Amino acid sequence: MISNKMQSLVANSSVIRAMFDEGKRLSKIYGEENVFDFSLGNPNVEPPEVIKESIKDILDNEVATYVHGYMNNSGFEDVRTTIAEHESKKHGMNISFESIVMTVGAAGGLNIIFKTLLNPGDEVITFAPFFGEYRAYSANYDANLVVVEPDIDTFEPNIEALKSAITPKTKIVIVNSPNNPTGVIYSDAALTKLAEVLKQKEEELGIDIFLISDEPYREIVYDNAEVPCLLKYYKNTIIGYSYSKSLSLPGERIGYLVVHPEIADFSDVMGSLNVANRILGFVNAPSLFQRVVAKNLNAEVDVNVYKKNRDALYNHLVSIGFECVKPQGAFYLFPRSPIADDKKFCEDAKQFNLLLVPGSAFGCPGHFRLSYCISYEKIINSLPAFDKLIALYK
Amino acid sequence: MISNKMQSLVANSSVIRAMFDEGKRLSKIYGEENVFDFSLGNPNVEPPEVIKESIKDILDNEVATYVHGYMNNSGFEDVRTTIAEHESKKHGMNISFESIVMTVGAAGGLNIIFKTLLNPGDEVITFAPFFGEYRAYSANYDANLVVVEPDIDTFEPNIEALKSAITPKTKIVIVNSPNNPTGVIYSDAALTKLAEVLKQKEEELGIDIFLISDEPYREIVYDNAEVPCLLKYYKNTIIGYSYSKSLSLPGERIGYLVVHPEIADFSDVMGSLNVANRILGFVNAPSLFQRVVAKNLNAEVDVNVYKKNRDALYNHLVSIGFECVKPQGAFYLFPRSPIADDKKFCEDAKQFNLLLVPGSAFGCPGHFRLSYCISYEKIINSLPAFDKLIALYK
Repeated sequence: MISNKMQSLVANSSVIRAMFDEGKRLSKIYGEENVFDFSLGNPNVEPPEVIKESIKDILDNEVATYVHGYMNNSGFEDVRTTIAEHESKKHGMNISFESIVMTVGAAGGLNIIFKTLLNPGDEVITFAPFFGEYRAYSANYDANLVVVEPDIDTFEPNIEALKSAITPKTKIVIVNSPNNPTGVIYSDAALTKLAEVLKQKEEELGIDIFLISDEPYREIVYDNAEVPCLLKYYKNTIIGYSYSKSLSLPGERIGYLVVHPEIADFSDVMGSLNVANRILGFVNAPSLFQRVVAKNLNAEVDVNVYKKNRDALYNHLVSIGFECVKPQGAFYLFPRSPIADDKKFCEDAKQFNLLLVPGSAFGCPGHFRLSYCISYEKIINSLPAFDKLIALYK
Repeated sequence: MISNKMQSLVANSSVIRAMFDEGKRLSKIYGEENVFDFSLGNPNVEPPEVIKESIKDILDNEVATYVHGYMNNSGFEDVRTTIAEHESKKHGMNISFESIVMTVGAAGGLNIIFKTLLNPGDEVITFAPFFGEYRAYSANYDANLVVVEPDIDTFEPNIEALKSAITPKTKIVIVNSPNNPTGVIYSDAALTKLAEVLKQKEEELGIDIFLISDEPYREIVYDNAEVPCLLKYYKNTIIGYSYSKSLSLPGERIGYLVVHPEIADFSDVMGSLNVANRILGFVNAPSLFQRVVAKNLNAEVDVNVYKKNRDALYNHLVSIGFECVKPQGAFYLFPRSPIADDKKFCEDAKQFNLLLVPGSAFGCPGHFRLSYCISYEKIINSLPAFDKLIALYK
């Protein structure tokens, strides 16, 4: 009875569910403490304590029908103004509240962008490895996802390959930095080249190409790394931000878009994002949490918890022979699989109670993803299992 | 630059924005207290006090990474179980947690249903007058909305007209009771006939037709009126519920679906609703409010506030010559316009600082909608303006 489009999506999702069920099955047999589930990107670091205090403060001091009520589909104007000032200061730019749309997380934000920009048959380009949901988001609007092959030595965007991927049907290029699954932050040099190519192709083909920056991991960075702001490289840019990771609030579905003030047809784009928020059924970003995040612009989770995990896991894996680009952000490692068949490798891992995700799920076979947003203790306890796993191939 | 589909939607929405701006313009000239805005369905009754206490209680006593974290895309299992028990008891049925999907309000719920069921070219039938968003929700999935002409004497669903509207392409019939814009509760007699027609047509055409019941106003009823439960009439039924009105939480985007346990292909439908919640970008219903509503299943707003408004406005309008079906639910009146051209009538109303919505916006010209979820004082103060308005046509 379900629609043709949903049939294959439901079939695919049952693969993920199967992994989840496998985790539960193993936990039952070996005990939860002996199963090492590196498959989920669910933050394990507590939200900052100020979040709780802010919620109580808002409930006690603001008018309930306002706090929980409808507002403009793009969000509370005072919240949008506060966030615009924050973004302006952060990037040394002049961004007004009219550039901000409060969204149901980054996923909601990306969907209203795609709904706004894409006609059937349009092309959305992304760089492998990429967050698998981009394929579904493109299909929602009958657009085709075009995957640019990875540069597996650095996991920087492969700019040469991008050049030949752009066609007259290209409407969107979407990037995700710090990246899921690699943790790599795209460099200033790579982004400069990327913007040059886009400008050149826009002119050559007489089209507008929109650069979408999916930034849920912007604040999860290590070693004082800087995340370059794409608004500074290219005018046809929209940032999709989310508090899911930066404040450990993934279930609350709160984020926002920043639209470049000089984007093509600014007013039409903003009008359409507003309407798309309504008609896709989001209506507006959850109202209480709009007010909460506006009060906590400088709050952050303790990134050192993740850093400690990264260091322990990365150092051990490299010491026993895994090859891996050292990530400077997010909470993932994306090592090379010791065998070409990453799906078989992840199957093999299960015998040591290790749950890993094949790189194929991110358009990058021959690798695997580890989410290290689990307890440090669990990471330390898992290390011998990796020793046994790699020994299989020696 | 925006997509073809969005262009007309953005143009239409600017009409609504124009009305909003007109309200602001009039308020500036005449003072806000002298402008009578009956155009918006934003609840003005406070959420029950227990909501605030529950939020604080959850923040103080549950684990923050759990409360604000990811869960199954269909919602927390304990929340779904609690709601299933509540629905089972309310309707005397046996509904399990597997029939429940927590959604981003009713709008989010309807979108995941439409995504699940509709192929391009399918038909969605609704009864005029209807909530205008159904047209956009259908268009999101390239389906066509088929509007059954109204029975303007009762505003009950026009079952005879339904018979001829059903074709082999019919996939969904969507009803909304208590109704926006009429406030009418569809009767047991009408729903019995409706279900009979659907069963007969399913058999005759060899198709499945799904009945979707959009029920955000289920708890907003007067005079001890009962709202019949559609699950009891027809197996291929899904209820879309929302707490926007029943708990005055429209900005929080929290609701749920109840899928009939005997719906065709139950397990595929549930799997698809789950995946649709994820890929459309909702991901899950806001997590804190899932936990809040599960703790307050019997909480309700003070419906007497709305009833007092209804009575004052309905009695006055009828006494001065407006014709109107007396509503038993929701917070709208839908009187007949004294002139056939409802748009001109609503234009005329503006000279008395009355902001009304033409019935044309609900597929029912010759009428107009009043939202009476504003203060009682404002309603009383507006009455002389209606006297002047109707005098124009005498």
